Amino acid sequence: MEDEMNIEQLIEMTEDLLKNKQYVKVRDMIITLQPTDIAYIMEAMPDDTMPLMFRLLPKELAAEVFVELESDSQENLITGFSRAELKEVLDELYLDDTVDIVEEMPANVVKRILTASDPEVRKSINEVLQYPEDSTGSIMTTEYIDMKRNMTVEDALKRIRRVGQDMETISVMYVIDKDRHLLGYASIRTLLLADEDATMGEIMDRNVVSASTLDDQEETARKFEKYDFLAMPVVDKENRLVGIVTIDDAIDVLTEETTEDIERMAAISPSYKPYLKTDILETVKSRIPWLLLLMVSATFTGQIISSFEDALAAFTVLTAYIPMLMDTGGNAGSQASVTIIRGISLNEISIKDIVKVVWKEIRVALIIGVILAACNFAKLMLVDKMLFHNPITISVALVVCCTLVFTVFSAKLVGCTLPLLAKRLGFDPAVMASPFITTIVDAISLLIYFQFAKMFLHI
Amino acid sequence: MEDEMNIEQLIEMTEDLLKNKQYVKVRDMIITLQPTDIAYIMEAMPDDTMPLMFRLLPKELAAEVFVELESDSQENLITGFSRAELKEVLDELYLDDTVDIVEEMPANVVKRILTASDPEVRKSINEVLQYPEDSTGSIMTTEYIDMKRNMTVEDALKRIRRVGQDMETISVMYVIDKDRHLLGYASIRTLLLADEDATMGEIMDRNVVSASTLDDQEETARKFEKYDFLAMPVVDKENRLVGIVTIDDAIDVLTEETTEDIERMAAISPSYKPYLKTDILETVKSRIPWLLLLMVSATFTGQIISSFEDALAAFTVLTAYIPMLMDTGGNAGSQASVTIIRGISLNEISIKDIVKVVWKEIRVALIIGVILAACNFAKLMLVDKMLFHNPITISVALVVCCTLVFTVFSAKLVGCTLPLLAKRLGFDPAVMASPFITTIVDAISLLIYFQFAKMFLHI
Repeated sequence: MEDEMNIEQLIEMTEDLLKNKQYVKVRDMIITLQPTDIAYIMEAMPDDTMPLMFRLLPKELAAEVFVELESDSQENLITGFSRAELKEVLDELYLDDTVDIVEEMPANVVKRILTASDPEVRKSINEVLQYPEDSTGSIMTTEYIDMKRNMTVEDALKRIRRVGQDMETISVMYVIDKDRHLLGYASIRTLLLADEDATMGEIMDRNVVSASTLDDQEETARKFEKYDFLAMPVVDKENRLVGIVTIDDAIDVLTEETTEDIERMAAISPSYKPYLKTDILETVKSRIPWLLLLMVSATFTGQIISSFEDALAAFTVLTAYIPMLMDTGGNAGSQASVTIIRGISLNEISIKDIVKVVWKEIRVALIIGVILAACNFAKLMLVDKMLFHNPITISVALVVCCTLVFTVFSAKLVGCTLPLLAKRLGFDPAVMASPFITTIVDAISLLIYFQFAKMFLHI
Repeated sequence: MEDEMNIEQLIEMTEDLLKNKQYVKVRDMIITLQPTDIAYIMEAMPDDTMPLMFRLLPKELAAEVFVELESDSQENLITGFSRAELKEVLDELYLDDTVDIVEEMPANVVKRILTASDPEVRKSINEVLQYPEDSTGSIMTTEYIDMKRNMTVEDALKRIRRVGQDMETISVMYVIDKDRHLLGYASIRTLLLADEDATMGEIMDRNVVSASTLDDQEETARKFEKYDFLAMPVVDKENRLVGIVTIDDAIDVLTEETTEDIERMAAISPSYKPYLKTDILETVKSRIPWLLLLMVSATFTGQIISSFEDALAAFTVLTAYIPMLMDTGGNAGSQASVTIIRGISLNEISIKDIVKVVWKEIRVALIIGVILAACNFAKLMLVDKMLFHNPITISVALVVCCTLVFTVFSAKLVGCTLPLLAKRLGFDPAVMASPFITTIVDAISLLIYFQFAKMFLHI
């Protein structure tokens, strides 16, 4: 809250200072901030002040701020830059950030960027661009420090001092042979604590976990979480080092993939844009397919009710409990499915656990079903019958409560198995969450309801 | 998939080797693995082999594996350790890991741990333990490298070589004055690239973002995500440096808080334990309160239906569309609420955006509502009437479709405002997701339905 206050105040102050053309004061104020916050303030100013503010920043900070800007602002800036200015910014950027920017820009801007880049950088950009979206190759950078095994620690430290400025991280160094095969790694700590005459081959750790260029980016990001890495080497099919992934990009992937999971669970097609930046039609497009599909699927529940019209006409009170039964079934089912989906995402649950999962859910469902049914029986007799004078007989209450037990049971069973089956079949388990489960459980609970009504009420 | 195969195979091999008492082979195989994986294998073996396998590991690796074990395994090991053994493990642990372990252990084991620790470590443990759960203080470590401003880079590097082994990270050094006030920071890269005679005061960056011991841990963790930090200093009220938070702990907090959000959204009380490790009664306890509450709230929908019994008796076909209307309303509402809840979590949306949010949702809702209604009208006339011969008149179809538009509209409105209001009132917005919204939207949609039925069908 305090930070938010501060940044809003800073925005106001910047606005005032810009109006009064006190540019030096603006600069002195903003250069003490984090790049992310400077970008945020620049985005909040009138569009025409963006190039002006950008030129106030020292070169290195300017590049850091540039990375944090929205892509439309980046595009506007690039379009306004002279070629020399563009080159200056590009020289300061890390390669993976340049690639991210290139991926968002229209063709003519991409061309400008590639023309302004050094031939070597241009080659690297094109290399990373060739990897499929969502692959580990697409999030890696080629700016890492590699070492030969016969280099001494002293040589290695000299090398770090020489090239370290341009590398994305100096936390970890990778040791390769002459064909670039990955042999091991050494952290900067190992290097600093080692004897200056020791060789990289002696001090390196050979137990190195690497990712493949074509590995799914989420899978790679989860390894950072699991093993507490700061960086991870990326190798090609022949185990040759081609790049590294750093933790900041891994965190971005984790956040993005989690948002995607959450959106899928709520029947939204993932959009990858912040809510307030998405335009109306995009939002509609991401929400309507599932709503339509689920609406049409509800035809089944409608047909079930239609076919039991006579039962409902005879005992009109039964209609009143349809929403409660359907909602409880839906909620019970989504509790199970969401727990399993999250467990799969975090690699805590996999297909081989299906028997354990089902056995657990069966027991949980029975306990929950019986407790809910007992409470509901009491509520039906005390509140609905005595307080609201609804025409509830013991038989009707039994129909409702027995349905409740069986609905919870089948909801939990459907809820826990569908995500695992989806995973097995190669679909995203997150699709098997509340809305989907609810539609299935609605139909099941109505069928159970009318069967019990037949049994107990002799319709 | 491949990794999973591997680890399962490793488990089988370990089992066989242990049976044949080929302990050296077991050791040679597992010491090439990551600590997390070794812990996983040990957990999969029979309980009585745990101390044996643990003693096979070299000292440092043993400590790293110990941290990754489940707390019941840790407890069993500690209980079996001699005091010397326990001290050896504790000496290798980082302070924040020791604190995490202490927090999970019963009192008698805690006493053993504290007795076996060095007096200085014991003091630090007690210091971190005093901070409230979920505070930044509770996840920090006191093992960081601090420097004085007049130290030269040469001195600083010597100091890193001397104390670096025991520190949680050497990526960032913190510069403090004689009263421990935080003055600035310098990364290991800055240090290595600087002139050896420069002082810390000259090379340090004064624009340091710090957290307060009492800041919420999620707030602090989100700053790592926002600013791409590897570590962050933690200060007390007087801006004195008391500890640091490292990125591995920040990631754990982010994962934990996200799981908590997802569970809350699915009407589950957070449990903080992996699904397969939670016992049946704990799972029941985390799921039943919301189910009960939501079940009882459904009394309202029941009463609404009861009070329109006559209308339903006259037009029995209306009953068939109750599930579809309720589900569509629920889904439309949860799409909005889940999007807003995630936006709030990621600091993309705050209370001050409420007008923008509502204005956007109104337009989205109208477009979606009209499309759904049009599709549904076609479906009612073509499928339900002509194919299934349901007694649907134009008037009935109009009732259903107009209700659909208004239901989607109110669902989106309720869905987008409730999370923001919850946040404003200091509740967790995640509670305002599907199940809660569904219950409210059910009642609203039924009221709208019966009003339209009255208007168009003259009941």
